[in-house]
Amino acid sequence: MLVLSSPSGAGKSTLARKLLEADAGIEMSVSVTSRKPRPGEINGTDYQFVDADEFTRMRDRGEFLEWALVFDNFYGTPKARVEATLSGGRDVLFDIDWQGTESLQKTAKNDLVTVFVLPPSAQELEERLTKRAQDPPEVVRRRMAGASNEIQHWDDYDYVIINEDADVALREIRAILEAERVKRRTGLQEFVRSLQSKL
Amino acid sequence: MLVLSSPSGAGKSTLARKLLEADAGIEMSVSVTSRKPRPGEINGTDYQFVDADEFTRMRDRGEFLEWALVFDNFYGTPKARVEATLSGGRDVLFDIDWQGTESLQKTAKNDLVTVFVLPPSAQELEERLTKRAQDPPEVVRRRMAGASNEIQHWDDYDYVIINEDADVALREIRAILEAERVKRRTGLQEFVRSLQSKL
Repeated sequence: MLVLSSPSGAGKSTLARKLLEADAGIEMSVSVTSRKPRPGEINGTDYQFVDADEFTRMRDRGEFLEWALVFDNFYGTPKARVEATLSGGRDVLFDIDWQGTESLQKTAKNDLVTVFVLPPSAQELEERLTKRAQDPPEVVRRRMAGASNEIQHWDDYDYVIINEDADVALREIRAILEAERVKRRTGLQEFVRSLQSKL
Repeated sequence: MLVLSSPSGAGKSTLARKLLEADAGIEMSVSVTSRKPRPGEINGTDYQFVDADEFTRMRDRGEFLEWALVFDNFYGTPKARVEATLSGGRDVLFDIDWQGTESLQKTAKNDLVTVFVLPPSAQELEERLTKRAQDPPEVVRRRMAGASNEIQHWDDYDYVIINEDADVALREIRAILEAERVKRRTGLQEFVRSLQSKL
């Protein structure tokens, strides 16, 4: 389970997409949310969009690995699909904020690698948020303030990446994923025992 | 400081050479040894060859970061050159055994990443040791026994690699190096503080 977190506008979604394209061994966890779809967002791909009542029913049935309320909207990670992917031997990528990460760390610490993506500068962050232009100006202002709050939690992550050049950042994330796969390889103890018995 | 350890014949020296060719940001720590050069080994490149008296004088002057006695020969890591490389912003690669690694872990734990390289099978290890053919048969036998002893320490390393395919193993080592460089990036706290102050 690989977590990517960052303030909005740091380029995390693009990095996540590039990682999924480059590595067939990992797939995205699609979050459930009660917020309205933005233009171009596809239900079931970007998020599973539900209304707030449906979200709270799912939550009360224990269907979330973690959930949180962010900017007046609910976000949650559905448990069943994550478990199916992991037991099929593939990794799961999470695009979640620090609250979601903190919740996951409580329930799945040993299976988790967490990466925080920082923008190269405050100016660059503001430009990216403004260029995106899908949100009204007051949302951009709120997101800039939110970025400051989100960034406070950088030190709770295993790795921190500065997204100045998307290719470099992608290479770093792929290296982290590969190194952690080596570290967590299953069956190593049995392999060594078998090797030792033949020496 | 990146340590590669393995039983003789697991392919560690080839991996070290390929890593040095592929990555200009890391250089080899040349060990000092009291053993005789093998055919083709170059003084100052493969090892710094000295006699046992000179070795013990260097040791007594405190010139080694770590030293050990292996198969009746002394091996040691000279301190001055390692410190010069690190303070120049480059990494240092160590091709040392578990004893050397244990010593380094005592003196430089926070700056150290340790990787243990395993052969894919006992049969493959024996073939590689026999093919090398620079050592007399009784040395090959002693090294097979030594391999069993060396492999016992696999679990004291941060990462374990199975060297079945040298290209895959090299890719894994490079990923480990890149991921650990991200993890240990200096100046991150100052960067975040500066970013926060502008949000």
